[in-house]
Amino acid sequence: MRLYSLWAKVEYDGTDFYGFQIQASERTVQGEIERALEAVAGKRIKVTGAGRTDRGVHARGQVVGFEVEWRHSLEDLHRALNAVLSADVAISEMGLAPEGFHPRFSALSRTYRYTLLNQRVRSPLARRKAWHVAQVLEPAAMEEASCLLVGQHDFATFGQPPQGENTVRTVLRAKWQEQQPFLTFDIEANAFLYRMVRSIVGMLVQVGCGQISLDEFAAIVKARERSQGKSLAPAHGLCLMRVDYPEGVLL
Amino acid sequence: MRLYSLWAKVEYDGTDFYGFQIQASERTVQGEIERALEAVAGKRIKVTGAGRTDRGVHARGQVVGFEVEWRHSLEDLHRALNAVLSADVAISEMGLAPEGFHPRFSALSRTYRYTLLNQRVRSPLARRKAWHVAQVLEPAAMEEASCLLVGQHDFATFGQPPQGENTVRTVLRAKWQEQQPFLTFDIEANAFLYRMVRSIVGMLVQVGCGQISLDEFAAIVKARERSQGKSLAPAHGLCLMRVDYPEGVLL
Repeated sequence: MRLYSLWAKVEYDGTDFYGFQIQASERTVQGEIERALEAVAGKRIKVTGAGRTDRGVHARGQVVGFEVEWRHSLEDLHRALNAVLSADVAISEMGLAPEGFHPRFSALSRTYRYTLLNQRVRSPLARRKAWHVAQVLEPAAMEEASCLLVGQHDFATFGQPPQGENTVRTVLRAKWQEQQPFLTFDIEANAFLYRMVRSIVGMLVQVGCGQISLDEFAAIVKARERSQGKSLAPAHGLCLMRVDYPEGVLL
Repeated sequence: MRLYSLWAKVEYDGTDFYGFQIQASERTVQGEIERALEAVAGKRIKVTGAGRTDRGVHARGQVVGFEVEWRHSLEDLHRALNAVLSADVAISEMGLAPEGFHPRFSALSRTYRYTLLNQRVRSPLARRKAWHVAQVLEPAAMEEASCLLVGQHDFATFGQPPQGENTVRTVLRAKWQEQQPFLTFDIEANAFLYRMVRSIVGMLVQVGCGQISLDEFAAIVKARERSQGKSLAPAHGLCLMRVDYPEGVLL
């Protein structure tokens, strides 16, 4: 037996989860991973995650950390966990965590992607991963508005901090891409406020269909009042794409 | 009231359907569309489809035809049907069918796409639309083998005809594309035998992982014996992409 301190990259389809964070009576991603670890390692193990994704939000590159006693190879552990995890969650990569690693506090940045389906008719095949917006959107206006978000700003309009600390965050990148009939929005920041991405996308869609002008958008951002940012894009369009760490941390 | 003869392009997520064709006690796409028509038009209406996709197979461009008495605009009918259809099926386009139109018999060709996920670990987000193949595949060998299928051939190795007629079909196109970690296979033919695409893909994957050589594949095709083509790729990787008609038929 050896005690391993590990990181793992996790992909999940958020549709049937009540979010990442463990809850007593609901099915969560953290709960599902802890269940798999208990089944494989024979005891209760606590898992920590880089980001607490909301109910219905997906992830391609969530990162978790945990400690486990194991007598075989890491590859065996990886395979055993994926065999026990349910079909809507899987560990895509796993490795030894360096001394003092914490999935959340060691992270430099998170990248989320929001996907819109912008066509008149809804799409059965895209319904779990894209928000269907039937109105005609003006991607150029949405792109221009999202440029205003890049940099260090007080994002109080778009969300609350988890523990009442300050609402200043640094957005490193905010970019729309068109792949007809989809519009995807990639946003990277050092950290995000609660529901910040969905709140930003909700308002950028209002810009895209002309309900809010660019000047109004700029004023709403500057207002730093949560009451002004209440149009929330639905959870199922959102995906946590990756969490970045200082070089050499995830080997 | 006016009697309309219509075609409709239909998209569906096949996961929770027992195939296209109506069945007494199971949920089918045809049954779901007929239920929606009855709810909207107030009477039982028979729907015919271009292709009878199997249980679990998806469609982006299935084509159906039906006659309906309706007093409002076609746009209203389209909207009403999509409002009544369940989330996993939708009519993406609809129009007036020309005299004598039959979705199946008027069609010139059908195009199917098969999607493989070729990586070591399974993917929760792709699990409904791609067949996970963990072995290393050689796409060049699969592409070379699929070239042997193009043209008019007796495809008896790969499937049975629906009514015991002959097994000669004309494949117009058969092409693999790599979009890491996905491999997609597009195949267009005048018509297909029962389970022909899944049977072809099952065998091309055997070619791709070296279980069958190109020469063996060629011999199996030539053998024209169903018993030699028994490795069936699963349904959830398959999607009916489009049905093509002579110019001007679907306006």
